[in-house]
Amino acid sequence: LKARTSYDEDGVLRRIKAGFARRAGSRFVALGMGDDAALLRPTAGYETVLTCDWFLEGTHFLRDRHPADSVGWKCLARALSDVAAMGGMPRCFLLSLALPRELAGRWLDDFLGGLARAAKRFECPLAGGDTTERSEVLINITAIGETRRGAALTRNGARPGNLIYVTGRLGEAEMGLRLLREGKKISAMDVRLKKHLYPEPRLKVGKWLAEKGLATAMMDLSDGMSLDLKRLCDASGVGAFVHGNKLPVALGGKRDTKGEALNAALHGGDDYELLFTVAGKSNDKIPASGDGVKITRIGEIVHDSGVQLVDARGHSTPLQGLGWDPFREA
Amino acid sequence: LKARTSYDEDGVLRRIKAGFARRAGSRFVALGMGDDAALLRPTAGYETVLTCDWFLEGTHFLRDRHPADSVGWKCLARALSDVAAMGGMPRCFLLSLALPRELAGRWLDDFLGGLARAAKRFECPLAGGDTTERSEVLINITAIGETRRGAALTRNGARPGNLIYVTGRLGEAEMGLRLLREGKKISAMDVRLKKHLYPEPRLKVGKWLAEKGLATAMMDLSDGMSLDLKRLCDASGVGAFVHGNKLPVALGGKRDTKGEALNAALHGGDDYELLFTVAGKSNDKIPASGDGVKITRIGEIVHDSGVQLVDARGHSTPLQGLGWDPFREA
Repeated sequence: LKARTSYDEDGVLRRIKAGFARRAGSRFVALGMGDDAALLRPTAGYETVLTCDWFLEGTHFLRDRHPADSVGWKCLARALSDVAAMGGMPRCFLLSLALPRELAGRWLDDFLGGLARAAKRFECPLAGGDTTERSEVLINITAIGETRRGAALTRNGARPGNLIYVTGRLGEAEMGLRLLREGKKISAMDVRLKKHLYPEPRLKVGKWLAEKGLATAMMDLSDGMSLDLKRLCDASGVGAFVHGNKLPVALGGKRDTKGEALNAALHGGDDYELLFTVAGKSNDKIPASGDGVKITRIGEIVHDSGVQLVDARGHSTPLQGLGWDPFREA
Repeated sequence: LKARTSYDEDGVLRRIKAGFARRAGSRFVALGMGDDAALLRPTAGYETVLTCDWFLEGTHFLRDRHPADSVGWKCLARALSDVAAMGGMPRCFLLSLALPRELAGRWLDDFLGGLARAAKRFECPLAGGDTTERSEVLINITAIGETRRGAALTRNGARPGNLIYVTGRLGEAEMGLRLLREGKKISAMDVRLKKHLYPEPRLKVGKWLAEKGLATAMMDLSDGMSLDLKRLCDASGVGAFVHGNKLPVALGGKRDTKGEALNAALHGGDDYELLFTVAGKSNDKIPASGDGVKITRIGEIVHDSGVQLVDARGHSTPLQGLGWDPFREA
């Protein structure tokens, strides 16, 4: 990491290095923090997966509502969800961090704690980055992964007759955000809150699908299923039917109505689940769960463009891609 | 690129794609913009060079003083300077861009114009990124390059007796910034202004030094020579003597005094020149210029720690690493 300004830049860098020193080793990272750039050793026969992701105070998280530990965990987890969406395995990441001076102590330590736990959990060491001072917390994560050459799953391979699947439960993270905003005392063990604060990229399921060659298209759900499925369909030049009563909705609290849970599952953001399509004949090769995560068939790909929502009585209506942004309504 | 919010995100993405479509092809980029992540094909026998760089309105550039075209050029050029500093060749880059809604028209087009020219000039296509809306312009560039395995030049190899060299002229960019701030009418051809707005990473010289195995240590000068040389010395566990009268100072205007030019050369930021060390016996293998850029010997590495400035009469005084930040004094 290179210092760009000199508030207590050296102190910030020392904290970052201290937080990651024990986990720095990796066969993939030939040169880590401290030089002009990092050096990686690619694996023969693999392609490099590369993605970057903003995580900005006020846009993607709220400093007064989101614990620093969660900010650290989530900024890496969501970047790795894009690696999972290609069927890739994480190799390392870069951290670009801009920070107010007054957060360079306790807040930074908590942030680095969450980030280091995620890095360990997902076997993805910190290889470098850039830091500067700023009045708001700005984070950008570059995640680097690998897939076997030719095995990566893209968005454009869905074909009419393909079946549509998702991992996990949809809408929980949005419900978790609502709980957080209401500011009531809630258990840290609440599944909705946990899903919002500490998402788990579906790396093992994504890798399995890519290596088995079972999925025809895949992406991760980050902006809401209705919008993301539309993107997958547009990239593939197809349409889709989604069955509302098959959607794996949130395990909600008592007061969540069925309609609220369905709405969150259709349009809620921050799911970080996988959405993928499979040829009809491969249906029985898709297990009911993988790596402890439920896998659910929710619909099928059709010729006509557009996404239709089918209700319990078999009536279909166009599903609007609502493009959920957690802070637009705030 | 993935849309994270929906102001006119699709319009922004369309403009980005349009600006780069003709230059998208590359043997290195197997999958570019439009999916969850980019896919790169590493070259056999090479290592991957990876670096990321903030370029933030108010911290690294001023919206009312820096032309959008220069912002586009410079954000990529400075990231590629870190690739040059390892002796690497650029392969592709990722653009993370946060933008106020009102800049999504003309300003964005000018920005993309400068960025696309730099991408073409340095043979470094855009492979992906992330965009969002924000009240200020935030840019983060991830630059990806390659070096032959084992050939990369790091900061920690300088040894006592090594000679110290720099490329180009130092301090011009800082003088260019001063001109820009004063807001007077100045020619766009002024070398100082040009160096500040449109720096050229020393990619060919860096690659040549790495492939010939001539340099023992290398880094790029971005935060001021006095601070950056201290970093190289600290990483190598050595000290240095720098000869003030050998420094290649700016080709300044009439009113710049010799003292001002020397001061800018010692402490001015944004040079994006290379600083490197060479074993004494290799001195005659270093040419007086490379790729049209002057190469100047400015001092030597010694056992003692710390950097000393030697004046014309042979007197030496400790050189403070002033850690120049272009906007701190503003």
